[in-house]
Amino acid sequence: MNVLIVGCGREGSELARSIARQGHAVTVLDADASHFDRLGLDFPGRTVQGFSIDRVALERAGIATADAFVATTQSDNENIIAAKVARDVYGVKRVAARVYNPGRREVYERLGLATVTSTSWGARRLEQLILHPHVIDMEQIGQGEVRLLRIQAPAAWCNRSVAEVLDGSGVICALARNGKAFVPAPTETLQKDDLLYLSIPNSRLAEILALNPNE
Amino acid sequence: MNVLIVGCGREGSELARSIARQGHAVTVLDADASHFDRLGLDFPGRTVQGFSIDRVALERAGIATADAFVATTQSDNENIIAAKVARDVYGVKRVAARVYNPGRREVYERLGLATVTSTSWGARRLEQLILHPHVIDMEQIGQGEVRLLRIQAPAAWCNRSVAEVLDGSGVICALARNGKAFVPAPTETLQKDDLLYLSIPNSRLAEILALNPNE
Repeated sequence: MNVLIVGCGREGSELARSIARQGHAVTVLDADASHFDRLGLDFPGRTVQGFSIDRVALERAGIATADAFVATTQSDNENIIAAKVARDVYGVKRVAARVYNPGRREVYERLGLATVTSTSWGARRLEQLILHPHVIDMEQIGQGEVRLLRIQAPAAWCNRSVAEVLDGSGVICALARNGKAFVPAPTETLQKDDLLYLSIPNSRLAEILALNPNE
Repeated sequence: MNVLIVGCGREGSELARSIARQGHAVTVLDADASHFDRLGLDFPGRTVQGFSIDRVALERAGIATADAFVATTQSDNENIIAAKVARDVYGVKRVAARVYNPGRREVYERLGLATVTSTSWGARRLEQLILHPHVIDMEQIGQGEVRLLRIQAPAAWCNRSVAEVLDGSGVICALARNGKAFVPAPTETLQKDDLLYLSIPNSRLAEILALNPNE
């Protein structure tokens, strides 16, 4: 696959290295040639200096024959314009954009552009580590009707079976014990210090957050 | 709770605003006072100009009475030093650090510091959107023994029940149909265009990646 990545920041360069390692032909476009240092000396792909919203630069970088296009510059607006040009003008099939401002994300998704908002993900994870160290709200599914949580096994659940504790509305997707994770059978008995990965309806969130691992 | 955040970049400022909104007392420390603009005019917390690895600045920012400390500067080394000082010198109970370099993450975790590597998360998500649009590898649990995936329902699974398709080694944690998500009962019948959230042992990953939604 021919992949064109614009923006060679931390995220763009990590992505470029990873995709190239998997045998794809990667071209990276960035206005600042010094950013290409991030790719390392062994990077097998191609680098092109130029602006992501300059058609001449995009064409030199091979946008006309790209199978996939990813916009990861520091500017949300630049990413969205470049992504739209890639899709609408050059007909690139797989297009994704990095977005910093979570408020804009919805607009972009409505334009049909797949977006990734890692700043928000990071801020949310840091917040959870600080505010709720025993419960991590990993993912909201659909419009948030289902939540994926990571929790320390509440004391009230210990010595009970997996099938028993969630009463059928919710599942334990995984269990980590002594540093090893597995998908538990319904008959598995929960133990103190187990880390549980739960999928629950949003309606049960408050109840689960209120459970305490130490009581 | 008293929360001290060092680094007022995109992630630090989003975190500070979110935590302050929840009623906590937040102080943000940054060497560049112009970064405080990111907090917005209505930010109810305190800002202090100074370096995160300068004890005088940290003390002016109230580290001695902080309940939680988050290091989110642009420098991994600065974050790790500041986090260790917060925990070991000032005895702050909840300490987390943002880390850019995923290679260093393991070292930090071994030091007992909770870390968040959103650059890697973002690069991985972008890669998946481009390379495997029908399968998203959401999370690796434990040392990767269990994987959480999002997949489009493979054609071979349609018209079969949830209990049937994974043969007991793995679970369907959630199902999104027509934009609405729910935790499916074992008797639920899968349909074309369902989005499935699976928890599976790593040993089944290749088999699941090979399933195709269109065949």
